[in-house]
Amino acid sequence: MPSIPPLIISSSASTGHKFLSFLRCRYSTLSHAFTRRSIPMAASEEILRVSLAEKLSAVEAQGNAVRALKAARAAKTEIDAAIEALNGLKLEKASIEKELQAAVTGADGSLNRETFRQTVGNTLERRLFYIPSFKIYRGVAGLYDYGPPGCAVKSNVLAFWRQHFVLEENMLEVDCPCVTPEVVLKASGHVDKFTDLMVKDEKTGTCYRADHLVKDFCNEKLQKDLSITAEKAAELKHVLAVLDDLSSEELGAKIKDYGITAPDTKNPLSDPYPFNLMFQTSIGPSGLSPGYMRPETAQGIFVNFKDLYYYNGNKLPFAAAQIGQAFRNEISPRQGLLRVREFTLAEIEHFVDPENKSHPKFSEVANLEFLMFPREEQMSGHSAKKIPLGEAVSRGIVNNETLGYFIGRVYLFLTRLGVDENRLRFRQHLANEMAHYAADCWDAEIECSYGWIECVGIADRSAFDLRAHSDKSGVALVAQEKFPEPREVEKLVINTVKKELGLAFKANQRMVVEALEAMDEKEALEMKANLESKGETEFLVCTLGKNVTIKKSMVTISKEIKKEHHRVFTPSVIEPSFGIGRIIYCLFEHSFYMRPSKAVDAQLNVFRFPPLIAPIKCTVFPLVQDQQFEEVAKVISQSLTTAGISHKIDITGTTIGKRYARTDELGVPFAITVDSTSSVTIRERDSKDQVRVNVEQTASVIKDVTDGRRTWADVWSTFPHHSSVSADDEI
Amino acid sequence: MPSIPPLIISSSASTGHKFLSFLRCRYSTLSHAFTRRSIPMAASEEILRVSLAEKLSAVEAQGNAVRALKAARAAKTEIDAAIEALNGLKLEKASIEKELQAAVTGADGSLNRETFRQTVGNTLERRLFYIPSFKIYRGVAGLYDYGPPGCAVKSNVLAFWRQHFVLEENMLEVDCPCVTPEVVLKASGHVDKFTDLMVKDEKTGTCYRADHLVKDFCNEKLQKDLSITAEKAAELKHVLAVLDDLSSEELGAKIKDYGITAPDTKNPLSDPYPFNLMFQTSIGPSGLSPGYMRPETAQGIFVNFKDLYYYNGNKLPFAAAQIGQAFRNEISPRQGLLRVREFTLAEIEHFVDPENKSHPKFSEVANLEFLMFPREEQMSGHSAKKIPLGEAVSRGIVNNETLGYFIGRVYLFLTRLGVDENRLRFRQHLANEMAHYAADCWDAEIECSYGWIECVGIADRSAFDLRAHSDKSGVALVAQEKFPEPREVEKLVINTVKKELGLAFKANQRMVVEALEAMDEKEALEMKANLESKGETEFLVCTLGKNVTIKKSMVTISKEIKKEHHRVFTPSVIEPSFGIGRIIYCLFEHSFYMRPSKAVDAQLNVFRFPPLIAPIKCTVFPLVQDQQFEEVAKVISQSLTTAGISHKIDITGTTIGKRYARTDELGVPFAITVDSTSSVTIRERDSKDQVRVNVEQTASVIKDVTDGRRTWADVWSTFPHHSSVSADDEI
Repeated sequence: MPSIPPLIISSSASTGHKFLSFLRCRYSTLSHAFTRRSIPMAASEEILRVSLAEKLSAVEAQGNAVRALKAARAAKTEIDAAIEALNGLKLEKASIEKELQAAVTGADGSLNRETFRQTVGNTLERRLFYIPSFKIYRGVAGLYDYGPPGCAVKSNVLAFWRQHFVLEENMLEVDCPCVTPEVVLKASGHVDKFTDLMVKDEKTGTCYRADHLVKDFCNEKLQKDLSITAEKAAELKHVLAVLDDLSSEELGAKIKDYGITAPDTKNPLSDPYPFNLMFQTSIGPSGLSPGYMRPETAQGIFVNFKDLYYYNGNKLPFAAAQIGQAFRNEISPRQGLLRVREFTLAEIEHFVDPENKSHPKFSEVANLEFLMFPREEQMSGHSAKKIPLGEAVSRGIVNNETLGYFIGRVYLFLTRLGVDENRLRFRQHLANEMAHYAADCWDAEIECSYGWIECVGIADRSAFDLRAHSDKSGVALVAQEKFPEPREVEKLVINTVKKELGLAFKANQRMVVEALEAMDEKEALEMKANLESKGETEFLVCTLGKNVTIKKSMVTISKEIKKEHHRVFTPSVIEPSFGIGRIIYCLFEHSFYMRPSKAVDAQLNVFRFPPLIAPIKCTVFPLVQDQQFEEVAKVISQSLTTAGISHKIDITGTTIGKRYARTDELGVPFAITVDSTSSVTIRERDSKDQVRVNVEQTASVIKDVTDGRRTWADVWSTFPHHSSVSADDEI
Repeated sequence: MPSIPPLIISSSASTGHKFLSFLRCRYSTLSHAFTRRSIPMAASEEILRVSLAEKLSAVEAQGNAVRALKAARAAKTEIDAAIEALNGLKLEKASIEKELQAAVTGADGSLNRETFRQTVGNTLERRLFYIPSFKIYRGVAGLYDYGPPGCAVKSNVLAFWRQHFVLEENMLEVDCPCVTPEVVLKASGHVDKFTDLMVKDEKTGTCYRADHLVKDFCNEKLQKDLSITAEKAAELKHVLAVLDDLSSEELGAKIKDYGITAPDTKNPLSDPYPFNLMFQTSIGPSGLSPGYMRPETAQGIFVNFKDLYYYNGNKLPFAAAQIGQAFRNEISPRQGLLRVREFTLAEIEHFVDPENKSHPKFSEVANLEFLMFPREEQMSGHSAKKIPLGEAVSRGIVNNETLGYFIGRVYLFLTRLGVDENRLRFRQHLANEMAHYAADCWDAEIECSYGWIECVGIADRSAFDLRAHSDKSGVALVAQEKFPEPREVEKLVINTVKKELGLAFKANQRMVVEALEAMDEKEALEMKANLESKGETEFLVCTLGKNVTIKKSMVTISKEIKKEHHRVFTPSVIEPSFGIGRIIYCLFEHSFYMRPSKAVDAQLNVFRFPPLIAPIKCTVFPLVQDQQFEEVAKVISQSLTTAGISHKIDITGTTIGKRYARTDELGVPFAITVDSTSSVTIRERDSKDQVRVNVEQTASVIKDVTDGRRTWADVWSTFPHHSSVSADDEI
């Protein structure tokens, strides 16, 4: 049996409906005949289920035997022996049950993961990284605030995103409103297709996501009802695996089959029906202009293509970017910070000539090697593996260089933020996950306690979006390529003879002419051959709904050589789309660790944020309460402010150890302790190493290590070391 | 007559309803009996109106005379002489009309201002600082995108705001959602009172803002109908001045009196009625949870007060800050970029002990001197004048030090962005503009082509907001002050004797007890005196709706000395609230100028953005098309990117002069021209001065001048000068 990373199943199940690009791909017809997710049960589980079933039968049989002996008033010794055998069987059954329970709930570490998640979550909430929004009014599901340290991390992540993408690639950043008129989202497909399936409690009207109910039923059954057969367990697992792809009817059938009722009331449920996930509103006072809060930022870029292309000197390729809020009116948000009703997206739309998707800077990322999970590996049940990016492109695993370039840049972005490269993979969409128009899609997935979470979608969406808006608005969203030399092209020319057609078709003439002129090359050449051989031919005019007879005198069809000076085309778009909140949440999990405290019997929490991302770059403490030390601390604080470094000054009398612990829990990378008027110590959070630096140099050393101009290793080798055995343990 | 800056009238009229804090103050009962805005007409205008009226009478009289002569068949010479006199009078009338026209339209330069606005607006739109949102779908009124340079300016302004306020003052920045449940905005008063008055075309249903129609009528009449009397003109001007304060009924009466009809159809109009300006939506699928897109960011901070106070170590004062989108569903947005339906706010809520509003850093701003426009100056018809801030606070013109401190910091913020200090004033709200609870309010107003525009509101809102949310949520939003020593306080103690009260009032006992216990000090002491002198007293129990007789045996009232260890109070909040889009628009106008080009007969446009704010910090050009120079340009470009400096590289063959002109129009402060492989020239935009710098030093020089570590004057005095006579004129 192939080795399967334990998280695959729960990931596809728990991320539920697709977050970023995928939601835009769902419009394609999904084939349900695929197998990837129907991963076989682990061998041990199957064996256990079978032996549990056998043991249950044995217990039942022995129970019957005991009752029969009693009814027959058999000898006491005989009855006792039978009861003893029964008890033995029951013990064996219990033991198998226990083993099976462990296999179904603990096999993928889900219990440990939940504990870990709670520990991180408690720390994040206690230190105000997050606050449930409108908490004093008992909150609103799916809405969270970033408190002070969370807000600082977010703004650091966005500043680095701007530096890493916008500045580095000279992208055109725009900033469009969230309020969007209906016509735009009608063109993009969101008004008609941006939906989830919902069921209602038929008596109370409470709404549930249909797939959630089925998922909960299957999980509950699998984990708590140990008596189900191995076949039933396999069926439920298959349902979990294909849940995202079930149609409204199929989901409805499952709900009926399984007898699923409303969780709170046990009332019967309605059939599933689609609920549009956009927040609707009305623009202006008339009530006649429906609008929506945008579900993504991309449309604002697409509708501006013409102006942006002009701004770029009418040259391709170029990329536009946007950071902003997006909104999804989830039916019943779960998964805490990963599935919210309002979130920040950072999106890039890179416009290229579909005939040339090479990238001039691809060589800069070609040697990167990281976990990739191509379609074929998924289908054949393998796991993600490290592939050099250059090889992935040259072997055609990744569709083109530009897509590959962005995959590489996203990898660099995420790992520099502090995402663990061993819990980051790029997963290619399966054929049935992609929209019909998409050339290729890869998701950057980060593994956290919820499973593998899609955090960045990188899709080659071909010309779909620009065409959709061209069609709807009537404004051509196209690019031109001027040829250095005019090119000779063979062109089909269809000339209709109006006089003859008029005589033959009278009032229908226009429709016939239009149909003739709309013929593609194949049709036209066939007609030409027919007319030459037979003098006339039957021709279907769709707008008339019937065949007409076309004679040789009515049309001439020829191929001519023409000179062309340029070509006009709709650019392809390659779209990396970042769910900033999800990235930040995963970053929090990857950065969190605990270390023992010698002083108290407790674990201390630490976030190992890189200095770039840390919400506060350093703290300044006087070692003891002392007027002179406080003055020095204030001078250093002022120089840090001038240098633009966020920091905290703490002149409370708490022990240094406690102060370190407090700031470690906020992920502050450096602590400056003032223990003299001329020099201070700087302590690094993770190593707890300390160096001694002059007061005047302090701010610039901190500036250098937080800006990334200097590493801590370099600082460590430059300045005298300071050892303070006890400070960290005085907690 | 006092000297009045010509813009006062049009400002209060054209900014229309108040933008930021003021909208939150409108809930107070507005007194209409105020006079500031009823500024008398300029003397010349009044004289002209009177002499025009006289001349019109003279023309009419002379016309009658001519007709009489003709009717009487007088001698031709006599008739001709009369006609000549009539023509003379007509000429004089025309001349007065011309003068009056100039007086009413040109006196405040409104025509010039309009031309200027158009020039700036065209440049901004052509260079994609702004784009009307969803332009290919013919846009939506009141929604604009920031294109690439506008977006860069905005993000620079916000980064500087963070540095200048959040970092410098150690503020707690938070980030809350835009989607807000109804209960929050019910508590804040927005659900009930955040409205504008609207009228509907009674036949088509088209909506208009009632005050806009009256304003247009008055302006039109004043500017185009020169025949109205001086009295009528004075009346219309008064209406314009008090327009913001008219009630629904008063506005309706004006519309009837003036016979105002729907502008597009001339149909009759409905009576004015309030329209809520919030975008409404529904949270979740049930349709049972109404929500709104927040009209300001402040509420997100107020509801988090308790957590933020805890985060700050339960200490006051502290400030929280938030940058984010806010939404107002304007009835019919006008004034282009100044009145939009979605905009970015940056708000600070500084929480203080109401008994101590001093500020430790006030001395740092006390010596600043800038245009202030206190209430008294406005009421007496004077203009804004320079007052040292320290004096304004010590004389009590500004209510307290903390409010004064923020006024000073806002002044520094705006002028460092590039706002012209001579077109910036701080205007105090008049008594009738402020909410009843507000202690004092000042608006930073910037003068632009639309008049004086409120861009920052700085208000001491007392405890209003926290109390409102405490009341609604039932969660106490309060602070504590621990006394260093316990304090002895005299406290009123009311003890009711339940047995006696029960006998006397039976079922009503509870109501009577509650009423007795709820007495304030004055009432209680009066009762005590009555009981002691008369043995009994009449007492009104509101909940019973009647008086009851209280006897001496039923209650004991005494004053006792108690020790208190702390006091609990609701903090006051001082709120500086920044309309980022308005600040940026005014900045664009203040930064714009034109200079002649020698080469062509045209003016060249320049934005004189300070380097801090400039969307692109520098451009890099090879002087001529040359492989080596291009290589050097690329090396410099790479070092600029590494240093985080946004720049543009231009290797097209266009003349240097044209390239300079292109980037001046984007406000790029520095241009690097590569004319050798070892050194380059750096040109400063406004002076056009050039220095010569080594290739290796180039990026760091640019970094220093854009980060503000070094001035151009310093660079100019350090590096050899380079003179290129013709470059700038090769356009």
